[in-house]
Amino acid sequence: MGEKFDLHTRLSELGLDLPPLRPKAGNYLGYVETGELLFLAGQGADGWIGRVGADLGLEQARTAARDCMLNLLAQADDALGGDWSRLVTAVKVLGFVACTEEFTQSPAVLDGASDLLVEVLGSRGRHGRSAIGVQSLPLGFAVEIEMILAVRPRPAGA
Amino acid sequence: MGEKFDLHTRLSELGLDLPPLRPKAGNYLGYVETGELLFLAGQGADGWIGRVGADLGLEQARTAARDCMLNLLAQADDALGGDWSRLVTAVKVLGFVACTEEFTQSPAVLDGASDLLVEVLGSRGRHGRSAIGVQSLPLGFAVEIEMILAVRPRPAGA
Amino acid sequence: MGEKFDLHTRLSELGLDLPPLRPKAGNYLGYVETGELLFLAGQGADGWIGRVGADLGLEQARTAARDCMLNLLAQADDALGGDWSRLVTAVKVLGFVACTEEFTQSPAVLDGASDLLVEVLGSRGRHGRSAIGVQSLPLGFAVEIEMILAVRPRPAGA
Repeated sequence: MGEKFDLHTRLSELGLDLPPLRPKAGNYLGYVETGELLFLAGQGADGWIGRVGADLGLEQARTAARDCMLNLLAQADDALGGDWSRLVTAVKVLGFVACTEEFTQSPAVLDGASDLLVEVLGSRGRHGRSAIGVQSLPLGFAVEIEMILAVRPRPAGA
Repeated sequence: MGEKFDLHTRLSELGLDLPPLRPKAGNYLGYVETGELLFLAGQGADGWIGRVGADLGLEQARTAARDCMLNLLAQADDALGGDWSRLVTAVKVLGFVACTEEFTQSPAVLDGASDLLVEVLGSRGRHGRSAIGVQSLPLGFAVEIEMILAVRPRPAGA
Repeated sequence: MGEKFDLHTRLSELGLDLPPLRPKAGNYLGYVETGELLFLAGQGADGWIGRVGADLGLEQARTAARDCMLNLLAQADDALGGDWSRLVTAVKVLGFVACTEEFTQSPAVLDGASDLLVEVLGSRGRHGRSAIGVQSLPLGFAVEIEMILAVRPRPAGA
């Protein structure tokens, strides 16, 4: 992944489209960059509503997690101004799955996001993670994911 | 917001009081500063007990979230020794709402905290955020919020 | 705690064993180090399965939290290559307890982890924390904990 890396191109090779930036659900920003860390706000995935283990099955939830990651990548692309040579490495994913009390496969759900991140970014996409099953998520989302990336400072004059 | 910014004064302009530091609920610190980040431990709000959607309505929950943010600001003021010229920017808010399975308005709840942060700190109060609905919180709190701020190092000799 | 600090020795003084690294439950890393922060992925504790307040009592849950911290320390030991002189300080613990709606003692549960961290690392083990009660955790774990440590860069040539 050199300086020529283009997220749209890479996603289209995988048969995927980069989604537009989702509107915020409240008074917050999609990302804040500070020092050499880029903190991305939690992203859900439109169209995947309900509780995993009741309204959605595992495969649907994995797709929801993948779509959350597409939304996170869109935010990161915006933060980086498309310049992915600034990416040092993915750092940390924190994923929440709205689910029944009996559902304990949140790691398998989150792999839908983690697999995509590594497919898109290669070794620089590898990351630490926690997966948590929760009561409810904003707008009824089945999955919500936030992420931290390590980035190089913007080049002087850019 | 120059070097003369005083949190007590700013809050009183908004008709609010800075609360005293809450006692810890366990063996942990209210904040840890490292590098150029200030990590604030989760804060609840006394008096707002129960589950949103059952015991509390949306407006009560928004006030609870605001009060959590007041407690976070009190911790940050303590960490900064009152010197808010050290603040670079708010970075990230992670907010948990104890709620019923049906309640999906956690972003509207968290706006109670986010709105206050921006009212108090201006553009430096803008932040990324995730909102999560959960089963239960410490001491029965309806809302709990943790936060990361970016700060300048303490001046030499201070 | 000087350069000679050895985690195995310190734990054996406390009557505890350092566990082997647990296998990952998905496509992620146990830790990522970046800048001067070490982000440790969420760790559960094998053998402690179920919901606190129903299947497990408070003391069992405290032991589960302690065992999660042992797993985190094992990951940190691996990340540091055993060189704990690189540790600056613990920074932040985020702990999740799978529990009933009525259970509100997650701070007492998490103290099982926090107490151990301070016993093992002394003043450098002190940390900020949030405790959250949730619906379900990976593999049915009763407790899951993630952690951030501040570390010095690896010595040149190491």
